[in-house]
Amino acid sequence: MEASRGCKVVVPIDLKKKPREQKLPLHNRWHPDIPPVAEVRTGEVFRVEMVDFSGGGITKEYTAEDIKYADPSIVHYLSGPVRVLDVDGNPAKPGDLLAVEICNLGPLPGDEWGFTAIFDRENGGGFLTDHFPCATKAIWYFEGIYAYSPHIPGVRFPGLTHPGIVGTAPSMELLNIWNEREREVEETGLQSLKLCEVLHSRPLANLPSTKGCFLGKIEEGTPEWERIAREAARTIPGRENGGNCDIKNLGRGSKVYLPVFVDGANLSTGDMHFSQGDGEVAFCGAIEMSGFLELKCEIIRDGMKEYLTPMGPTPLHVNPIFEIGPVEPRFSEWLVFEGISVDESGRQHFLDASVAYKRAVLNAIDYLSRFGYTKEQVYLLLSCCPCEGRISGIVDSPNALATLAIPTSIFDLDIRPKINKVPKGPRLVRNPNIPQCSYDGKLPTTKNPSATT
Amino acid sequence: MEASRGCKVVVPIDLKKKPREQKLPLHNRWHPDIPPVAEVRTGEVFRVEMVDFSGGGITKEYTAEDIKYADPSIVHYLSGPVRVLDVDGNPAKPGDLLAVEICNLGPLPGDEWGFTAIFDRENGGGFLTDHFPCATKAIWYFEGIYAYSPHIPGVRFPGLTHPGIVGTAPSMELLNIWNEREREVEETGLQSLKLCEVLHSRPLANLPSTKGCFLGKIEEGTPEWERIAREAARTIPGRENGGNCDIKNLGRGSKVYLPVFVDGANLSTGDMHFSQGDGEVAFCGAIEMSGFLELKCEIIRDGMKEYLTPMGPTPLHVNPIFEIGPVEPRFSEWLVFEGISVDESGRQHFLDASVAYKRAVLNAIDYLSRFGYTKEQVYLLLSCCPCEGRISGIVDSPNALATLAIPTSIFDLDIRPKINKVPKGPRLVRNPNIPQCSYDGKLPTTKNPSATT
Amino acid sequence: MEASRGCKVVVPIDLKKKPREQKLPLHNRWHPDIPPVAEVRTGEVFRVEMVDFSGGGITKEYTAEDIKYADPSIVHYLSGPVRVLDVDGNPAKPGDLLAVEICNLGPLPGDEWGFTAIFDRENGGGFLTDHFPCATKAIWYFEGIYAYSPHIPGVRFPGLTHPGIVGTAPSMELLNIWNEREREVEETGLQSLKLCEVLHSRPLANLPSTKGCFLGKIEEGTPEWERIAREAARTIPGRENGGNCDIKNLGRGSKVYLPVFVDGANLSTGDMHFSQGDGEVAFCGAIEMSGFLELKCEIIRDGMKEYLTPMGPTPLHVNPIFEIGPVEPRFSEWLVFEGISVDESGRQHFLDASVAYKRAVLNAIDYLSRFGYTKEQVYLLLSCCPCEGRISGIVDSPNALATLAIPTSIFDLDIRPKINKVPKGPRLVRNPNIPQCSYDGKLPTTKNPSATT
Amino acid sequence: MEASRGCKVVVPIDLKKKPREQKLPLHNRWHPDIPPVAEVRTGEVFRVEMVDFSGGGITKEYTAEDIKYADPSIVHYLSGPVRVLDVDGNPAKPGDLLAVEICNLGPLPGDEWGFTAIFDRENGGGFLTDHFPCATKAIWYFEGIYAYSPHIPGVRFPGLTHPGIVGTAPSMELLNIWNEREREVEETGLQSLKLCEVLHSRPLANLPSTKGCFLGKIEEGTPEWERIAREAARTIPGRENGGNCDIKNLGRGSKVYLPVFVDGANLSTGDMHFSQGDGEVAFCGAIEMSGFLELKCEIIRDGMKEYLTPMGPTPLHVNPIFEIGPVEPRFSEWLVFEGISVDESGRQHFLDASVAYKRAVLNAIDYLSRFGYTKEQVYLLLSCCPCEGRISGIVDSPNALATLAIPTSIFDLDIRPKINKVPKGPRLVRNPNIPQCSYDGKLPTTKNPSATT
Repeated sequence: MEASRGCKVVVPIDLKKKPREQKLPLHNRWHPDIPPVAEVRTGEVFRVEMVDFSGGGITKEYTAEDIKYADPSIVHYLSGPVRVLDVDGNPAKPGDLLAVEICNLGPLPGDEWGFTAIFDRENGGGFLTDHFPCATKAIWYFEGIYAYSPHIPGVRFPGLTHPGIVGTAPSMELLNIWNEREREVEETGLQSLKLCEVLHSRPLANLPSTKGCFLGKIEEGTPEWERIAREAARTIPGRENGGNCDIKNLGRGSKVYLPVFVDGANLSTGDMHFSQGDGEVAFCGAIEMSGFLELKCEIIRDGMKEYLTPMGPTPLHVNPIFEIGPVEPRFSEWLVFEGISVDESGRQHFLDASVAYKRAVLNAIDYLSRFGYTKEQVYLLLSCCPCEGRISGIVDSPNALATLAIPTSIFDLDIRPKINKVPKGPRLVRNPNIPQCSYDGKLPTTKNPSATT
Repeated sequence: MEASRGCKVVVPIDLKKKPREQKLPLHNRWHPDIPPVAEVRTGEVFRVEMVDFSGGGITKEYTAEDIKYADPSIVHYLSGPVRVLDVDGNPAKPGDLLAVEICNLGPLPGDEWGFTAIFDRENGGGFLTDHFPCATKAIWYFEGIYAYSPHIPGVRFPGLTHPGIVGTAPSMELLNIWNEREREVEETGLQSLKLCEVLHSRPLANLPSTKGCFLGKIEEGTPEWERIAREAARTIPGRENGGNCDIKNLGRGSKVYLPVFVDGANLSTGDMHFSQGDGEVAFCGAIEMSGFLELKCEIIRDGMKEYLTPMGPTPLHVNPIFEIGPVEPRFSEWLVFEGISVDESGRQHFLDASVAYKRAVLNAIDYLSRFGYTKEQVYLLLSCCPCEGRISGIVDSPNALATLAIPTSIFDLDIRPKINKVPKGPRLVRNPNIPQCSYDGKLPTTKNPSATT
Repeated sequence: MEASRGCKVVVPIDLKKKPREQKLPLHNRWHPDIPPVAEVRTGEVFRVEMVDFSGGGITKEYTAEDIKYADPSIVHYLSGPVRVLDVDGNPAKPGDLLAVEICNLGPLPGDEWGFTAIFDRENGGGFLTDHFPCATKAIWYFEGIYAYSPHIPGVRFPGLTHPGIVGTAPSMELLNIWNEREREVEETGLQSLKLCEVLHSRPLANLPSTKGCFLGKIEEGTPEWERIAREAARTIPGRENGGNCDIKNLGRGSKVYLPVFVDGANLSTGDMHFSQGDGEVAFCGAIEMSGFLELKCEIIRDGMKEYLTPMGPTPLHVNPIFEIGPVEPRFSEWLVFEGISVDESGRQHFLDASVAYKRAVLNAIDYLSRFGYTKEQVYLLLSCCPCEGRISGIVDSPNALATLAIPTSIFDLDIRPKINKVPKGPRLVRNPNIPQCSYDGKLPTTKNPSATT
Repeated sequence: MEASRGCKVVVPIDLKKKPREQKLPLHNRWHPDIPPVAEVRTGEVFRVEMVDFSGGGITKEYTAEDIKYADPSIVHYLSGPVRVLDVDGNPAKPGDLLAVEICNLGPLPGDEWGFTAIFDRENGGGFLTDHFPCATKAIWYFEGIYAYSPHIPGVRFPGLTHPGIVGTAPSMELLNIWNEREREVEETGLQSLKLCEVLHSRPLANLPSTKGCFLGKIEEGTPEWERIAREAARTIPGRENGGNCDIKNLGRGSKVYLPVFVDGANLSTGDMHFSQGDGEVAFCGAIEMSGFLELKCEIIRDGMKEYLTPMGPTPLHVNPIFEIGPVEPRFSEWLVFEGISVDESGRQHFLDASVAYKRAVLNAIDYLSRFGYTKEQVYLLLSCCPCEGRISGIVDSPNALATLAIPTSIFDLDIRPKINKVPKGPRLVRNPNIPQCSYDGKLPTTKNPSATT
């Protein structure tokens, strides 16, 4: 008889404690010198528990104050790093590929709730911040596989639960590449025609900052902490190491092939999502929650050379590969909204998929608000429900064409256009109060029409 | 007993005749004054037949010469316009919504083949024209629902067959909006930082041209023809009237809700695709074919106001809505490639989904070429197979993150990364000759690194 | 350049002609000596056209008279046999396996309609003949992939179109086995306790009969015809050669591996179904239609020994294997009705899946009749819509448990039980006249309660 | 802010304790007088934990001794009954319908394993006990959603996890009906032609027995216990109250509509299955495990009259209705085996779906054993993997036709028949020892050929 295969908890979370009080300290930066907190072997299934990305900063209260004044410097609280060894005890090596299977996942028991929020325009905003500048929040409750929100009534859907963040530690060389290229975009960005006009109110990059920095076992305030904190990359964008991929289909049974840049791979995970729509448009936009992952690792020795192609000037310019799992919720009917790269002012953009997707999302928001929702409610919903954002056409000059497909069965009402006038019956959602703060900033006034959207 | 419901052919095609010799003349421009060639009533199922978008210009020969010297002014040959009346004989009116159900579709009997091609960089190019400047072509043969190509061996897949183009005639007012905004992008485009650098070799817009213009029943050379030809919009980009949407899931059983801008709606269709990948990246990039549509129309009176929201300065700035059909091919396993908005030179772009998608596609091309394919073969394949292009993250500054998901079962080989070295067996595709022309243009030389990609 | 792959029509049907007037004569029996009417090679796609199983005997008229007096001796009209050779011209041999891919299929152009019917109890009946003794018929019209019936309003669904019959010719030895075992059941059946009680009014077997016999190229009335007609097996039951399998998922892209019993395999097909429910309970119970198949054959030499196991006293006691295709209609919600092996009188049967399934179907009929349908309408519907009949439990003595799962989206109404009383709205189908004849037979009167159900 | 929605555990299980030592006592019989152990209100999500059906009697040891000598009198250990009240505190009443949603489910944490077994022919046997008389067992380990077994190598699949048993307490009247009809089958069964021949070695019914009886809070040995134990129905067959339905698709997000026969409904659950094939052919045949259910109840007042139809002599002869959930594993390719109602001796049975399904299963076993498995391994596998057992044809006299569809992706090897000889590579599974006991009984010898199968 074999020994029990019960799942080893390598990173436990105590929900009654704050992030910095956890038994194994959390971290919220990428750096090769953040020490591993646990060790696993290939082939074994192990469990990692995680706080929500805000470490409890965003609460279950029906208020948007916590969103409005959220501290962006502390995101995302990650669990790990976990050092990975093969069955003989030899660590993963730079150049290997780390295959991470997500055997199971879910919210932490006793913490079956989540939130979706729009940041205030002055505090990070979202994809549509020019349209929705106010901090707004919806609370979701989970009933097993289903989520519902008192703030977005008439909707209930099964989650396609996944980790927003799964990544390996970067090497110092890769870290330098990141910091350099992101510094450049921040410095030069404002001169760029497009950026000034359309997206000027959102941060151009998120550069290293010692403020709010957690480095796991590295004691805060020590010289080592200072050095690392000044170098360590923020976790906000996805990069070569995986990281904040926000791939909404990365659910149960999926597998990620991550490049290894440091000895032991140093795998970190966090930012659990009960559900997310493609694009995560509201930014704090999935159904954010605490959670657990049950993982199994394999090492493909020299797998980077075998399977990944450097796609930039160095061999480090690679991207992970993903395999999608077999148990996604099944939807059969979809309503699809389209956007083309003509902006709200009527101005033509050239094959710009970001503009096209923005239009598709705005289009869907307007449509669904006809059923009794406020636009903020729909914006939040499309950010977190299992909707699909596609690049449908990217070659037909001058219009990029993006689509947003929404599964119709998540709504109590039939939201499809009706050929015939339907008999009396429920047509409208009752529109409740939704936690929202007023926007105190100043909306830009400019003669350029696209700046006022 | 009811009368037979056999499907009325309202636009027949004779494959032995050229586009201009067809019984009902074709057109390749959008204009309110192109007269209808047929009339249908709501509720009846009718059949429209169509030549391929090139009207036979691209042939079944195993050569890329026809691609290299293709005349871009003649695309796309459309069938129609079809005037739509309600059961009482009253035409669809501006402000109505025309619901068009695609009851059935397919290739024209006896013409069960198609092609996928890359245009020469000097002749339109494609999404990756800077990487693949040469005219290249693959021929596909159909075996019922399946397609295979002697030029891309080891692949066979069921088609998600759909029309690339389905649209209503624009009003004069809408046509003016189009012409104005597209002229502006062409005129101002070259000054734009981004455009000069990354995409300068592709046309910025496709403005009206009398060259190659077909206007259906309007006789060529007449003053009326001259006037309309100078005003009529090209069919290349998708726009407010639907048009070249290239939504790859618009298959059997789907429904399109099109805005009506002129009396009778004047519905035109064309550009049939046996299959397409999201983005249609190679540009001539679906499996292009002749084909038929069996359609059924309904009119939702005043539906534009009821269901569409003007999303620009005028009430005409609207987009159609789509419902996806219930009989798409079923795939269970997907391999997913990621791209972030860092370009080939290592330069950071700000939340640019077009750059991210470009990277995801390049990534997938490099990966699959490890199995014995040339990169051109994979580029063609990813343009036409049922792969999904997603905007996964569009908020995590500075990286937009796009993904390309490929169904693994379309390949004879198992293309997934292997944990263990597999035993001897077929690992590589035999790499045949593929029709390709040399590129005679001059690749740009510039100091800006991203321009040399 | 390769030659055109256009699909060769090897068996054409002229819809204006009667079965016996077709260019290539049809047959309605299985016998090794029915001569092939066409020849194909492996690898080529060929087209076979077929009349409906009744050869036009059941008409489009809104009457059930044709059903009531239908001649059961003439079913099913098959097209073929088609002789199959390999690429070198050598025929398939006994012991080979014939892999038949269904590349495409559909109704014959211009004949887009079908029927579903219940036979009169005295004329063959159906699975529930004791409950529904009257001849009844519903006509279905096709709109591309969809079917609807004026006789069963409020329902529209996509077809999972398939051939009811696909089979190879039996050898004389196999034919003798069939005739012997079926004769035995007919002779001994009436003494069987179970049979007398429950199913006595249906034919116990369908033995060879010269009446109504068509043998293709064998001229009627000749001595050869007489001999063959007396030996040839009826096509009603599925057997070792495939035949009337009625596997409802055998749609586009499926593959059948058929045993070969005679030189050339002699493949015959017929009984096209636009759609069928598992069990085809009404007997004439799919949406019966004329149609075409586009097929591609391969020969697996000696494949019977390699892949099939004799499961009875001789090496001929084998069954075909099937692979299901990738383009079935997608349904996401199912309502499931259960039956256990306790019959209508309350009597317990021992692990009898036929009784359990009968109960599940009766249960579903009663449930759906609450929405305004007659029971006959539901019986017809469940016989032809894409519902799934499962053997859920076959071991829990004494109850076999069968289930019938119905996709909810085929109904206009929401047919699920409602927790809350729903607001006013459409709850009931308008119940039209359905073609039905009175039952002139005499229902059995007996003291055994289960005989009166 | 609303109060926490954390899931209330109403029936906890301590895995270190035996069934009779649990805090809330278990029961293994159906009777109206078994007192509820917990109470819930409609709308709340509550958690019920359960031991495996054998209460730990079948162990993790690699031996089949525990199967061979298993005590059939103690199955199945159920948790509950749970009394259900509406939000006002009024209990569910006879005549109501209890809608039970399965919000979530899974194995008990720390107990992630299960077993599939064949009972010895003398001890209950299975569907194929005449072919496989020996007690045999396979252990499965769970890796999140996946299960694998060291005893059936080369197979790994995602579970479609579900409760085998979910039922309400019967009224005394209903209980009497059950006992009467099952006693009759046991008494008269042996005279029945069919039963003697084909299935004589399996128990004909499972009548009440005081041996092994657990009645929850009713103290063993008391007069009340004696009375109830003599009346209480065994849990083995599914019946009017739901019970041992073994519907393999009753997974996450499903809903059961159960008739209410006693005040408070008295809901009991148990027999958790990680996965099961349709039919559960090996009898102890799912992947049996301990587990939890998170449930939510609603009461449809007078719902029995509104939605259920009495299908026998009394208003109690009803069956529950089921809705299938949206998160089943997704499979795209199936290999389908067929069986007709001709038994192993070549004898024809009349439209007997049980015989046809037996043949389909035997057929599949023989096929898969060609890949290196023993037949016992395949029998166990087909009993527990997500294969579909269909009644494909039940009307084509004399052959019923059943099919067994197996998802091909659960195997490491490609199990499909091959047109071309494949190159070298893994073709065969290594065939390990599987725990199995010898069969000490005496196989029947009789001249009737079907008795020797």
